[in-house]
Amino acid sequence: MAMDPDSLAKAFVEHYYRTFDHNRADLVGLYQDNSMLTFEGAKTQGAQAIAAKIASLPFQQCAHSISTVDCQTSGPAGGVIVFVSGSLQVGGEQYPLKFSQMFHLMPTPQGSFYVLNDIFRLNYA
Amino acid sequence: MAMDPDSLAKAFVEHYYRTFDHNRADLVGLYQDNSMLTFEGAKTQGAQAIAAKIASLPFQQCAHSISTVDCQTSGPAGGVIVFVSGSLQVGGEQYPLKFSQMFHLMPTPQGSFYVLNDIFRLNYA
Repeated sequence: MAMDPDSLAKAFVEHYYRTFDHNRADLVGLYQDNSMLTFEGAKTQGAQAIAAKIASLPFQQCAHSISTVDCQTSGPAGGVIVFVSGSLQVGGEQYPLKFSQMFHLMPTPQGSFYVLNDIFRLNYA
Repeated sequence: MAMDPDSLAKAFVEHYYRTFDHNRADLVGLYQDNSMLTFEGAKTQGAQAIAAKIASLPFQQCAHSISTVDCQTSGPAGGVIVFVSGSLQVGGEQYPLKFSQMFHLMPTPQGSFYVLNDIFRLNYA
């Protein structure tokens, strides 16, 4: 993978939230069996369980707006940590919700990346 | 290290912010040469440079208050990711600032942990 970490992070963030907002079920392809999601403190492991958790969130329509994207490499295994802040407009709600989320991306043998770690928190005012 | 990830995360967070609030210079011991800090988008690498960056922050007194601590293991190398949200009361300011911060802790040969990755962002209202 010739892509530098900043370009990878930017491309991942665009892809992830566009997919989340338009066809959430397709996110399953970004996770693997050892992937972990902690969503508002609730832990889920494995691509299928994570996809089910995301599908079960109690809103049908949403739109993420990204404010900041930070990234760092995470060690010799080739991982990249991506840290995002932004807001989330949920269908039927008047005001957007602020959130922070981090992803730990790991390379696959095929030259792509998958999400090993995913932690999401709303930022209450 | 017999400590489970949740206990490690809790102990680390207590130690980190207590040290930050009472003797910031001592944080240098938590970082190594390959450690990275991204503070409000500004990247710094290496324990000495990170300690200098933290020392240079434009306030003398501060008090962190922690709202949430999430953690996950980060792969076969034994790392632990810690994701924190909270607020920061800075001396001379009327209102606390909300923040999110993530740490990627890696084991040392001595059976302790150091901070490999550290990303900090204020959450603006």
